[in-house]
Amino acid sequence: MKTILVLGAGRSSSALITYLLQRAASHEWKIVVGDVSEAAARLRIGGSTRGHAIMFDIHNEEKSTEAIRTADVVISLMPAHLHHLVAKLCIVHGKHLLNASYVSPEMQALHNEALSKNVLLLNECGLDPGIDHMSAMQVIENIKEQGGKLLTFESFTGGLISPETDPENPWRYKFTWNPRNVVMAGQATAKFLQEGQFKYIPYQQLFKRLTKVSVPGFGDYEGYANRDSLKYIDTYGLHGIRNMLRGTLRNVGYCAAWDILAQLGCCDDTYPMEGVAGMTHRDFLNAFLNYDSQLMVEEKLCFTFRILPNGPEMKRLRWSGLFDRELIGLKEGTPAQVLEHILNKKWRLNPGDKDLIVMWHKFVYDLNGNKKEIHASLTATGDDANYTAMAKTVGLPLGIAARLVLENKITSRGVCIPTVKEIYEPVLTELKTLGISLTEQEIH
Amino acid sequence: MKTILVLGAGRSSSALITYLLQRAASHEWKIVVGDVSEAAARLRIGGSTRGHAIMFDIHNEEKSTEAIRTADVVISLMPAHLHHLVAKLCIVHGKHLLNASYVSPEMQALHNEALSKNVLLLNECGLDPGIDHMSAMQVIENIKEQGGKLLTFESFTGGLISPETDPENPWRYKFTWNPRNVVMAGQATAKFLQEGQFKYIPYQQLFKRLTKVSVPGFGDYEGYANRDSLKYIDTYGLHGIRNMLRGTLRNVGYCAAWDILAQLGCCDDTYPMEGVAGMTHRDFLNAFLNYDSQLMVEEKLCFTFRILPNGPEMKRLRWSGLFDRELIGLKEGTPAQVLEHILNKKWRLNPGDKDLIVMWHKFVYDLNGNKKEIHASLTATGDDANYTAMAKTVGLPLGIAARLVLENKITSRGVCIPTVKEIYEPVLTELKTLGISLTEQEIH
Repeated sequence: MKTILVLGAGRSSSALITYLLQRAASHEWKIVVGDVSEAAARLRIGGSTRGHAIMFDIHNEEKSTEAIRTADVVISLMPAHLHHLVAKLCIVHGKHLLNASYVSPEMQALHNEALSKNVLLLNECGLDPGIDHMSAMQVIENIKEQGGKLLTFESFTGGLISPETDPENPWRYKFTWNPRNVVMAGQATAKFLQEGQFKYIPYQQLFKRLTKVSVPGFGDYEGYANRDSLKYIDTYGLHGIRNMLRGTLRNVGYCAAWDILAQLGCCDDTYPMEGVAGMTHRDFLNAFLNYDSQLMVEEKLCFTFRILPNGPEMKRLRWSGLFDRELIGLKEGTPAQVLEHILNKKWRLNPGDKDLIVMWHKFVYDLNGNKKEIHASLTATGDDANYTAMAKTVGLPLGIAARLVLENKITSRGVCIPTVKEIYEPVLTELKTLGISLTEQEIH
Repeated sequence: MKTILVLGAGRSSSALITYLLQRAASHEWKIVVGDVSEAAARLRIGGSTRGHAIMFDIHNEEKSTEAIRTADVVISLMPAHLHHLVAKLCIVHGKHLLNASYVSPEMQALHNEALSKNVLLLNECGLDPGIDHMSAMQVIENIKEQGGKLLTFESFTGGLISPETDPENPWRYKFTWNPRNVVMAGQATAKFLQEGQFKYIPYQQLFKRLTKVSVPGFGDYEGYANRDSLKYIDTYGLHGIRNMLRGTLRNVGYCAAWDILAQLGCCDDTYPMEGVAGMTHRDFLNAFLNYDSQLMVEEKLCFTFRILPNGPEMKRLRWSGLFDRELIGLKEGTPAQVLEHILNKKWRLNPGDKDLIVMWHKFVYDLNGNKKEIHASLTATGDDANYTAMAKTVGLPLGIAARLVLENKITSRGVCIPTVKEIYEPVLTELKTLGISLTEQEIH
């Protein structure tokens, strides 16, 4: 009997825990789910006899140690800044750790220690980062095996909502993962490579510098650049490539409207606002606009950003209730916290809502002097607000990787991401059986 | 014989050291000037027998301790982030410390310790902050003594260049204090009070939200908001005031041109750029613009920001050499470091250049039901690139305060700023004899 410890029973854990519980009997697994709310963990376990819920707080060292010591593999879905604390305990007790977050400097610093204890710290093994790395590497290594040379790699992923969900929502967007990350998105300068030139886009330009992406069967989207595309030149082995860009997909029109909020300063998380308790949604916007006794908030906004009163940006802001004379409902907060709270009133998934994941890669390469182009795309639709496409695409790669670890099929050790064949190949193969795979298309 | 220890022999020290040396004989002072470059310190002393130059490095604790232990009062002109280290040594040895920088959280934390050792840590005693506080408090306390109630306080200060200097320079600006601070200016959200409402301006809007300021005899300027005007409501005792704004003055047109650099991301100090060693000025700008094989850098810039090819913004950027095919001349650097280096080629003061300080206050108050308005302004012109108006207005208040401290005329202790009458009154009185004073004008 092997024990899999899943830490975090939040938004993204449903599909992972279901995957593990469904296979627990045949594989002789015990699934322990730990969360700061033991009740939340119990809810995820449901009636399964193979599952066991515990209270888990990484700051309670004694209990954390006990939970990790008795596990065979640990999967962390906790907030990203806590992973390295889990990793430290995993190293002490010689346990492998899997998570779906970007490698933090604190995590990277544990590489040698993990190696010396023969421990795997597998990061970026969800959707984005995760399936994007794996599916890209599969195509890239294919191209290389044929003798091709990569010239361009572009990759965009978005967690959106399905066309039938909330048809009147002009953003075509709701919170399907941590809302805070959505509000804070893009605040570090984006770095990428374009025609061999290093390019930088600061926050103030990010939502203006868009890439149009057409996904067969799904239509057009817009993409903005992610923080650091450059580091994956190394990771993917793409030295000499001329275009390298990773980004986030949104429905057309989202970025222009979001840019208004970004330009106003509504996404700033660096200071507490004054008087939040007595403030309405409308007051919140007004705090970022000049005083004018003659003009309404809407008028000032339209004038400042030269947008039409009934144009697409105003339509989106209005739909989100940003001009409402409704109390925010917080006692205090930074602009980012206030905005998240206001948006959550309209952007929370209703029980029957279906989300939509869209991933799109573009590869341009030279093969024996001929320029070739491949597009690859993946879409996944959620079942409902619990079993979301986001939870599936983040959780299933982790679940599959946990199985591979327990079957000793992964030999990598130390701080890794799933760009190595022994990981991406079996994970992508099983994901395909679960209905998650990319469709490739050669462009002529 | 009393010893005054001046730390830092840089840009702003000329007037202060001259002031002290000129009075050293009559007051029986010994003036010790310490700098990481002993040669720089020696240069400031010149032939004076009352002066003594030493090598001073705050990170050399033994030597720093010796210098501070043997002083009677310490004046720090070192970089602001080092003041609190000096302050700690001053507290240990029971010495008063004066500086011209904003109170940092690290400095504020030393308040009780300083009090318990009967030590004065006087900050913000230069120009801005400094003379602005002192001159404002004098007017405010006058108004209060008459029974008036302040409704509005606005204050702007700028370190500019004199009309006869560099007449072809369209920015009407050169570096007269730490260039790094100029490049980094405004990167924290500005907070102020407008008609009783708390208002916030993020960096991306700062250089667009301008206040027009007319200074009698000098013409029109434009002002942008400083970081935190709100904290001075408390400090100045202005509870219930409806408008509170402190800002920075520039010549008309400066902000629109600077905003292009800010919007591009050229002032970002958070990451090192790739390939700086081989980069020209022009390449630097281009790194923040989209790739386009058809368009020149100038064309892309005009298109992105909807500015005219021969308009005022392009004229300023061109004058600063930003489109030149000249190597930057740095091996590495963040965007902010690169921009500072490029601008310094044109923005460094030539020996005969005269700088210009402009300060402007606006007070609106209610006196027995009547609305009254006072404007007060100060201008000061430098003698040359060494004895600048900036050096005079920053250094002389410190010199005068040092005299007052040595004459036991300041009873304040702990972390202070010069908003108390026992400091601002004698300092302003002596500044007036030195030709530095504000002109008040009642507006009808």
